[in-house]
Amino acid sequence: MEKFSSTDLIYFVDLAGTFVFAVSGWLLASKKQLDFFGAAVISFITAVGGGTLRDVLIGSTPVGWMQDINYLLIIASANVATIFFRRIFEKLRRTMFLFDSIGIGLFTILGVQKTIDLGLSPVVAVMMGTISAVFGGVLRDTLVNEIPMIFRKEVYATVCVGGGIVYLLLGETALNNDFRIIITISVIITIRILAVVNNWSFRAVK
Amino acid sequence: MEKFSSTDLIYFVDLAGTFVFAVSGWLLASKKQLDFFGAAVISFITAVGGGTLRDVLIGSTPVGWMQDINYLLIIASANVATIFFRRIFEKLRRTMFLFDSIGIGLFTILGVQKTIDLGLSPVVAVMMGTISAVFGGVLRDTLVNEIPMIFRKEVYATVCVGGGIVYLLLGETALNNDFRIIITISVIITIRILAVVNNWSFRAVK
Amino acid sequence: MEKFSSTDLIYFVDLAGTFVFAVSGWLLASKKQLDFFGAAVISFITAVGGGTLRDVLIGSTPVGWMQDINYLLIIASANVATIFFRRIFEKLRRTMFLFDSIGIGLFTILGVQKTIDLGLSPVVAVMMGTISAVFGGVLRDTLVNEIPMIFRKEVYATVCVGGGIVYLLLGETALNNDFRIIITISVIITIRILAVVNNWSFRAVK
Repeated sequence: MEKFSSTDLIYFVDLAGTFVFAVSGWLLASKKQLDFFGAAVISFITAVGGGTLRDVLIGSTPVGWMQDINYLLIIASANVATIFFRRIFEKLRRTMFLFDSIGIGLFTILGVQKTIDLGLSPVVAVMMGTISAVFGGVLRDTLVNEIPMIFRKEVYATVCVGGGIVYLLLGETALNNDFRIIITISVIITIRILAVVNNWSFRAVK
Repeated sequence: MEKFSSTDLIYFVDLAGTFVFAVSGWLLASKKQLDFFGAAVISFITAVGGGTLRDVLIGSTPVGWMQDINYLLIIASANVATIFFRRIFEKLRRTMFLFDSIGIGLFTILGVQKTIDLGLSPVVAVMMGTISAVFGGVLRDTLVNEIPMIFRKEVYATVCVGGGIVYLLLGETALNNDFRIIITISVIITIRILAVVNNWSFRAVK
Repeated sequence: MEKFSSTDLIYFVDLAGTFVFAVSGWLLASKKQLDFFGAAVISFITAVGGGTLRDVLIGSTPVGWMQDINYLLIIASANVATIFFRRIFEKLRRTMFLFDSIGIGLFTILGVQKTIDLGLSPVVAVMMGTISAVFGGVLRDTLVNEIPMIFRKEVYATVCVGGGIVYLLLGETALNNDFRIIITISVIITIRILAVVNNWSFRAVK
């Protein structure tokens, strides 16, 4: 499998995903009438929770956000932006679903890549990609005592598994790394929209 | 204390314990009418949750199941077996208690041994053995919102503490390693059966 | 910033904080009528939970209490002391607030110092100090299903953030290390008492 060096795109994509997740955390905290401190904590945990669990499990410590102050700065920026432009963000609340989909796409790719770079197997990489993408949101919803109702959780995670596999398979092609990332995220967004529109879910174990 | 090299028995015993825990996770998920994805996640967490927490705490990362694909394969096999032979497993549900006891015995021993091998103290080793054995089940029950009613939790964990101490004490004897494992598991199973039959518990702190 | 070598004061302070937190855990477990095993577990988690999460996140494993048997001995001593002198401790329950404040002050300082010693940034150090101080108590309250009512949680954590910043700023002065610790703890205790007396809280995000 082709080795994927940390390009500028990967780094930009990581910060963008962090921003999107931080905004979604603050908006949910705001809706739940938490104070500023609580909203900042929820925003932070939403943004870095998934990557933190991934880093702890694969032994990449101190965990990622500790080693680059830009992650904390981007979260703080997201918080300030949400405070000032909250009405705009709220009008966009229906489109937050799209932002959230981009975020899980970005984080899936980063989790897969970081795990592969450590020499672990592709199966483990897809699992870690999924954890990177969904665990921050799971913590966010759990901490404010909200069960995500708009989509079935299993589809949410399954989309990441599918996206992670697509990303790994594209690594076997001659495709440019940037296209590889863009295609994977597009696939994830498309599947999620189809899942919500068609109310997909899986049948219970009989 | 005698150094215990990873023999074939230890490895077989680890995979067998993983299989047993994966089956118990799937059966509980099935009883709770989770879908296939949910059942696979619960089964996986039940099987590896305890060992994962132990590995993170003692700093043995990437955690164990990531470094040997056989653990994921045995869990997948357990899931397929439970789907096809669920009726047989369900008829055996009363005997699942025995399987669960074997599982916690195996995982206690492995947790104790891995911690001792890192040069940590026997007291810490017994604690890590207990965590290895019980934490997967704690996560399983918590995630499906079930409180274990058949036995008092404290007895459940205390059995592991006792088993871990027995295992360490046997290490001071000239006993063959295989016998050491078999005796420890037998002790754990016996105490657990006695505890359930006699409805043992501990008095509340006055 | 001046390098702070582990002096006897730091070590004594760490053990004292562990003792105080272990007592508070046992007393709450006792109030909730847990049995001895449960009380010991809650006491242990209260005492080491915060430091354990900090060590896992910064990659300082095996986690601290595993590498020095004195931590387990001091927790066991706290448990025995609480059993024998419970009535005295209960009469002191109103002053447990003071003990708890000293505990979070001590643990904040230790978390900040350990993170700085690893070469991580001051911002991360203050975050890790706060986690060290509050996470054991969060776990304690969550496990016995109690929501801390006497003070607003956000003030609780904010006090640690403030104390951590004071401690780091004092490191820029020529102040003796022992005074630095004493001043920081005094600041934390003072702010907490003022917060409770004046019923401080933060306004909700509008």
